[in-house]
Amino acid sequence: MDISKRAKQIQESPIRKLATYANETKKRGIQIYHLNIGQPDIPTPEVFYNRVKDFSEKVLSYGPSDGLDELKQAMVDYFLKYNIALNKNDIIITTGGSEAVSFAFNVIADPEDEVIIPEPFYTNYNGYSSISNLKIVPITTDPENGYHLPDISEFEKKITKKTKAIMICSPNNPTGTVLYEREIRELGKLVKKHNLFLIADEVYKEFTYDGEKHFSILQLQGLEDHAIVVDSISKRYSACGARIGAIISKNREVMKAILKFAQARLCPPTLEQIGAIGAYRLPLNYFKAITDEYQKRRDILVEILTSNKEIILKKPNGAFYIMTKLPIDDSDKFARWMLEDFEIDNETVMVAPGAGFYSTPGKGTQEIRIAYVLETKKLERAGNILLKAIEKYNSLNP
Amino acid sequence: MDISKRAKQIQESPIRKLATYANETKKRGIQIYHLNIGQPDIPTPEVFYNRVKDFSEKVLSYGPSDGLDELKQAMVDYFLKYNIALNKNDIIITTGGSEAVSFAFNVIADPEDEVIIPEPFYTNYNGYSSISNLKIVPITTDPENGYHLPDISEFEKKITKKTKAIMICSPNNPTGTVLYEREIRELGKLVKKHNLFLIADEVYKEFTYDGEKHFSILQLQGLEDHAIVVDSISKRYSACGARIGAIISKNREVMKAILKFAQARLCPPTLEQIGAIGAYRLPLNYFKAITDEYQKRRDILVEILTSNKEIILKKPNGAFYIMTKLPIDDSDKFARWMLEDFEIDNETVMVAPGAGFYSTPGKGTQEIRIAYVLETKKLERAGNILLKAIEKYNSLNP
Repeated sequence: MDISKRAKQIQESPIRKLATYANETKKRGIQIYHLNIGQPDIPTPEVFYNRVKDFSEKVLSYGPSDGLDELKQAMVDYFLKYNIALNKNDIIITTGGSEAVSFAFNVIADPEDEVIIPEPFYTNYNGYSSISNLKIVPITTDPENGYHLPDISEFEKKITKKTKAIMICSPNNPTGTVLYEREIRELGKLVKKHNLFLIADEVYKEFTYDGEKHFSILQLQGLEDHAIVVDSISKRYSACGARIGAIISKNREVMKAILKFAQARLCPPTLEQIGAIGAYRLPLNYFKAITDEYQKRRDILVEILTSNKEIILKKPNGAFYIMTKLPIDDSDKFARWMLEDFEIDNETVMVAPGAGFYSTPGKGTQEIRIAYVLETKKLERAGNILLKAIEKYNSLNP
Repeated sequence: MDISKRAKQIQESPIRKLATYANETKKRGIQIYHLNIGQPDIPTPEVFYNRVKDFSEKVLSYGPSDGLDELKQAMVDYFLKYNIALNKNDIIITTGGSEAVSFAFNVIADPEDEVIIPEPFYTNYNGYSSISNLKIVPITTDPENGYHLPDISEFEKKITKKTKAIMICSPNNPTGTVLYEREIRELGKLVKKHNLFLIADEVYKEFTYDGEKHFSILQLQGLEDHAIVVDSISKRYSACGARIGAIISKNREVMKAILKFAQARLCPPTLEQIGAIGAYRLPLNYFKAITDEYQKRRDILVEILTSNKEIILKKPNGAFYIMTKLPIDDSDKFARWMLEDFEIDNETVMVAPGAGFYSTPGKGTQEIRIAYVLETKKLERAGNILLKAIEKYNSLNP
C-alpha cells in the first residue's frame, strides 16, 4: 500500500521547511528575524474585524459557491477605481489565492499538459502543478537583469502542442519585479497568436514603488477570452489567515467550469468574506501609508545589502520581496547555518533559500528571497546581521 | 483555446443545479420547502461566535498549514470521549470536509487509479474524482435493502491492479444508512488482504437514532496504516459556512505527504478555527437535544411517505437524509416539475433527484434525496405536499 506518485513528488515548501531548525534556534534562546515568510506586520483593517463581529445570523450556513454577492459587488466597485470594468459573474470568490491557482490550473489543463512560467516563481505553483499533474516549463530570468522577462522569442521556443497557458506574477513573488506594460502586451500578443491562456497572479497589485504602476492583463483589449487573474486579500488587506481570494475571467466557458469546481468544495469561508466586504470598501488612499512604509523598508534593505559589492541586487519596484544573489556557495546551507551555528548578540536571521523558487535543477543556489515585513529598525538590524553572516560564513568556508 | 477535459467532464452539483428553476418559482411568489440541501437549521453554538468575537490579534496572519494546535488538541480530547485515542499529529485541519476528500484522493491515487465506492454516494466525491482524474468504481446498493452493503465478494470482484482504496460514508449522505459494525469489519479485512486504503467520511458521526451507534474505522485494530478519516464541523456544530474539517490518519507517510498538500494552500481559515475550538469543547450531551429533534423529524417524514405503499423507504438510522424510491418515471423531471408547474396554496417542495448520486448511468432515476432540516411543522407540510405532487404528477403522466 503505497502513497501516490504525486504525493511523493510534491515539493516541500522551501519557505516553511527550515521551520524545524528555527524552532531549535529559538529553544537555545536566540531571537530570529523572520525575513523568510511573506507575512505582513501591517494591522488588518479594523473594519474587517468589526464586520465579522457584527455578524448576527443564528446559523453559519453554506454561502453561494461563487461567493457572497455583496463581496463580489464590493470587488467590482474596487476594480472600477482602477478603471477595470468587471461584472459580478466575471468573479468567483476562492478560498485564498491558492485555490484560485488550483482552479486556474485545473480548468485549462489536463495531466501532462504544460504551463510556461518565468522562474524564479512562487513555490506554490509547484505544489499545485504536482497535485494537478501539470508540467511547469520554466523560462529562466536573471538577477543581473532585475528578473525581467527575456525576449519574447524565448517564450515562443518553449511552446509545444501540450502548452495550455503562460503564467506570470506581477508585482512578483519572489523577486519584487514589476513587469513593464510592454512585456505584458507582448505576452498578450503571443498567447493570442498561439491560442493559449494567460494567467496572471496580481495579488500584490497595490504594492508598487517609485511611481511605478501595475499593469493588469485585464486591461488588454481583445484578450478577454484568454485572461485569467488570480487575486487575494491576504496581502492587500493584511489578512493572510482569512483565506479569501478570487479568480477573475471574462471567458464564460472558463467561469462556468470553475463554478463546478467551486461547487465541489461548496463555498469559501463565510465570516472572512463578511470581513472582506468591509476591507474592499476602504478608499484607495488606505494603501498610501502602507506602500510608503514598504518603499522605505525596501530602500533601507537595498542600501544595506548593496554596500557589499559582491551582492547582486537590482532594486525591485513592487511587492515586499527582494531576491538577491549572494557571494556564497549554497543558500540552502547558508540559511540553515544562520539558524544553527550563527548569532550576533543572540540574534540571527531567517531567509528563504533561492533554489526552491526555481524548477530548473541547480538554479538559484546562490540566491535568497527576503520579505521586508519587519518595521524599519528591526529590518536595519536584520540586514546588518545578514551582511555579517555572509562574511563569517565565507571565512569558515573559504 | 479549449478548457480541459476534466473541466468539461466534472458533474454539476445535482443538489444545486435546480437552483435556477427555484429562483423563477420564488419570483412567481411561490414558497419552496427546501428538502434538497443538507443545510441544518440548528443554531451554531454561541461559544463558536463568542470565540471569534474575542479574537484580538492585530494581524490576521497565516496559521500553521496543519491547523491551529489548540484546535487539534480540542479534537484529540473530543475523540477520546468516544474512546478513540488520537495524537495531534494524526490530525490535519482542512478547509471543510471537502478539502479532506481532495487530500485523501490525491494522497492515495494518481490519474487513472480507481477507488471503489458504494453508490448512491455524496456527489462531491464525483467532483473531486474528476478534478484528480480518478475513476470511481461503484458498488450499487439497493433501496429495498436500506442501502446496506452487498456481500463483501461484490467488492472483491471489483478490485483491479488500479484499485487504491475503498471509500465509505457512514452515517451516509445521501441515504441516512448507518453501516453495521460487521460491514465495516469485513471491509477492514478486505483492504488488509489487498493492501488498499480504507477512506471513511464520518462527518455525521453523532447523528444516529433508535440507539444505533456509529462505528468508526479508527476503532479497527491493526488497520492503522490503512484508515483515513474525512471529518468536518459543518454538520456536527451546524457551521457549514465555516469550512473547517480535518483529515485523520495514523499512517505517517500519508500524513507527511498531506502536510505538503496543505502547505500548498498555506492554512485553513483562522477565525473559523478559533470558533471551532469552542465548539469542540462542548460536552457530548450538547448533541442530545439535536439528535432527539432529528429523530422526531425523521419519524414524521417516514410516517407520511410510507403512507403511500408504492414508495420504497426503509427507515434509515442516521444523518439527516432519506433516500427513497418513488412511483414516478423520472425524478429529475419530477423535481423540476414541482418547481415549475406545481403548487398547493402557493407552496411547493424542492428535492434532490437521485441520479446525481449514482455513477452508474441510468441508476437512481426514480429516487430522490430528502434532507430533513426543517422544523417538524414545516416538514409535515412539505411531506404532505410531496405526496400530493406524486399523485398529481402521475395523473398528468399516466
